[in-house]
Amino acid sequence: MFSFTVTNQDTTSSARCGRLETPHGPVDTPAFMPVGTRGSIKGVLPDQLTRTGAQMILANTYHLLLRPGSEVIERLGGLHRFMGWEGPILTDSGGFQVFSLSALRRVDDDEVEFSSHIDGAKVRLNPTIATRVQNQLGADIIMAFDECPALPCKREHLEAVVERTVRWAEQSLSAHQRQDQLMFGIVQGGTDMDLRRQCAQALVGMGFPGYAIGGLSVGEGHEAMAQTVAFTAPMLPGDKPRYLMGVGTPRDLAMAIGSGVDMFDCVLPTRNGRNAGAFLGSGTIKLRNQCYKHDTEPLDKECDCYTCRHFSRGYLRHLFLVGEMAGPILLSLHNLRFFQRLMQQARLAIQENRYAQWSQRWVSYDREVATDVN
Amino acid sequence: MFSFTVTNQDTTSSARCGRLETPHGPVDTPAFMPVGTRGSIKGVLPDQLTRTGAQMILANTYHLLLRPGSEVIERLGGLHRFMGWEGPILTDSGGFQVFSLSALRRVDDDEVEFSSHIDGAKVRLNPTIATRVQNQLGADIIMAFDECPALPCKREHLEAVVERTVRWAEQSLSAHQRQDQLMFGIVQGGTDMDLRRQCAQALVGMGFPGYAIGGLSVGEGHEAMAQTVAFTAPMLPGDKPRYLMGVGTPRDLAMAIGSGVDMFDCVLPTRNGRNAGAFLGSGTIKLRNQCYKHDTEPLDKECDCYTCRHFSRGYLRHLFLVGEMAGPILLSLHNLRFFQRLMQQARLAIQENRYAQWSQRWVSYDREVATDVN
Repeated sequence: MFSFTVTNQDTTSSARCGRLETPHGPVDTPAFMPVGTRGSIKGVLPDQLTRTGAQMILANTYHLLLRPGSEVIERLGGLHRFMGWEGPILTDSGGFQVFSLSALRRVDDDEVEFSSHIDGAKVRLNPTIATRVQNQLGADIIMAFDECPALPCKREHLEAVVERTVRWAEQSLSAHQRQDQLMFGIVQGGTDMDLRRQCAQALVGMGFPGYAIGGLSVGEGHEAMAQTVAFTAPMLPGDKPRYLMGVGTPRDLAMAIGSGVDMFDCVLPTRNGRNAGAFLGSGTIKLRNQCYKHDTEPLDKECDCYTCRHFSRGYLRHLFLVGEMAGPILLSLHNLRFFQRLMQQARLAIQENRYAQWSQRWVSYDREVATDVN
Repeated sequence: MFSFTVTNQDTTSSARCGRLETPHGPVDTPAFMPVGTRGSIKGVLPDQLTRTGAQMILANTYHLLLRPGSEVIERLGGLHRFMGWEGPILTDSGGFQVFSLSALRRVDDDEVEFSSHIDGAKVRLNPTIATRVQNQLGADIIMAFDECPALPCKREHLEAVVERTVRWAEQSLSAHQRQDQLMFGIVQGGTDMDLRRQCAQALVGMGFPGYAIGGLSVGEGHEAMAQTVAFTAPMLPGDKPRYLMGVGTPRDLAMAIGSGVDMFDCVLPTRNGRNAGAFLGSGTIKLRNQCYKHDTEPLDKECDCYTCRHFSRGYLRHLFLVGEMAGPILLSLHNLRFFQRLMQQARLAIQENRYAQWSQRWVSYDREVATDVN
């Protein structure tokens, strides 16, 4: 039902191409997953998303647990049918959002209790509940429940986080009930290499079919992230998929692929798109700028997306200035296609054994793009 | 470049089928034009709109004049290229919005001066300016500048309105510069049959290639509208297209087609769609209703739209409750398809000479749907 095959190993870097087979179809790696937080990629319908080249998407357990609730989604036929997305889906464990969005009431070694950011309702999450919820949602890949600390963070706290994350990973694995879902473990440890090693080794010992690097893109900056990824990725088994959670900018992605990471998710293409920010081959632009008022050119002449094939920059600017929904929709479509083309180019560079050279192009790409997008 | 042919005349009513040829393609009548007020059908992209069956759309001169300005659209290649819509477009004259949206500063026999509803900027409109603006926008069909009074309205005022509308129609025709655009005249006169006759006769004397019935759906109610349409339509030449502006509900449309009207525009499908209102064969529903929480059925089993083929009512309800853009988008798509299917059914009923019987079905359709949607 599942398999992961490394199909090409670049020799100029640690980058590799692979193919992940799931019950809902294949995913070519390196892969970028658009984020459908509440069961919808904001502004983009499934058929449009397919045409951007996306194969797999992510949905957030925390948000879906609060609304409409995992029982509701189960009764409506599971997450794939609910969303009308026939391809593979990954759900996160809820851990990240619990620690970043909610008002925490209690965190102990067994569980987290928090108040919903929507209505203040008291909710509990622990490895058993997070796994049961993900079993109900029915994504192809689900994540072990983890604790995700904000950085910077004191060493003692980080130690406790890693200890809990390891214990919770084991409990998540035991709670997992469905054979048609793979569960990945999440390596925590901030930017502390010792703790990253400890956590990675403990999780690898449990024999997960895939591993994520979590707790990055939360304030540490690109260099610290790059060092942590370069250190952690090689400790994860080469024959299993590696997933860097919540990342990132084109520069972040090019870096992490070069360290051997296979999967990514990030809200950047849709969030920036909704705010008139476009990713072009030459850098990013803001469409509200007066300079585009009479611009008859497409966003990016080299892009083959729906937006670039049909509309001028002048029209897109107008849509944002008057507040038409089509502005966020068209820029999200373009940005999503940009990220998928980035992955296609990366895969081609790996297949042609020139990844190091190709990735150089992205080192200087828009350093001003926020790295911390979670 | 243009032609209008009546292809079928129903004998059970005054309904007829026709075909309007324009430089941007044909329009089968009776036709419903979705409204792209500011150069975009809210939430719906051109390729999606085409798949609903829409052939021709409407855009509002008043809104486009204020933002981005007709010069900007002209520099960006004209309205078709600006919007990425390759089919026929109709622009209204701006008259209706001037009298309904803006703060009027001065109305005299020559022109209207008003403050923009956006930033208070002082703007003038008269037949010459409204025509020049529409020539710049470049729609296939443009409208003579008219005055549109709110109803109820005193007889003396209505007389002045009709007198001005007739004079302005003549001035609009003289100002019209482009051979690749048809200009329609607009019959005003409220619900006063004498004034409707006067206005219609005067305009018909000017030899417009098409005529609109304006000034309805502004508070007069369905019965008064029906009487006015039934009275006015036969006074307009049978070999020219007849267009009822800003109408309406399925009941209004079925009524007006039966009186020999060929073209319609209305914001109802998109406006109601954005507010969780769906048009079904059986009546209208509000998707926020708790009763749809676990509903696995499509919106309307008989509908072939994208929304009905892919999503459950439970999912659509969720999208509205959490405020995802996909909710308004998917309901707008469905409603637009509903209105196009309504037109297809009407055309078929006319072709099969059973229009009176078919239209009976809609007499009782959702009387609670607001008639006054302008």
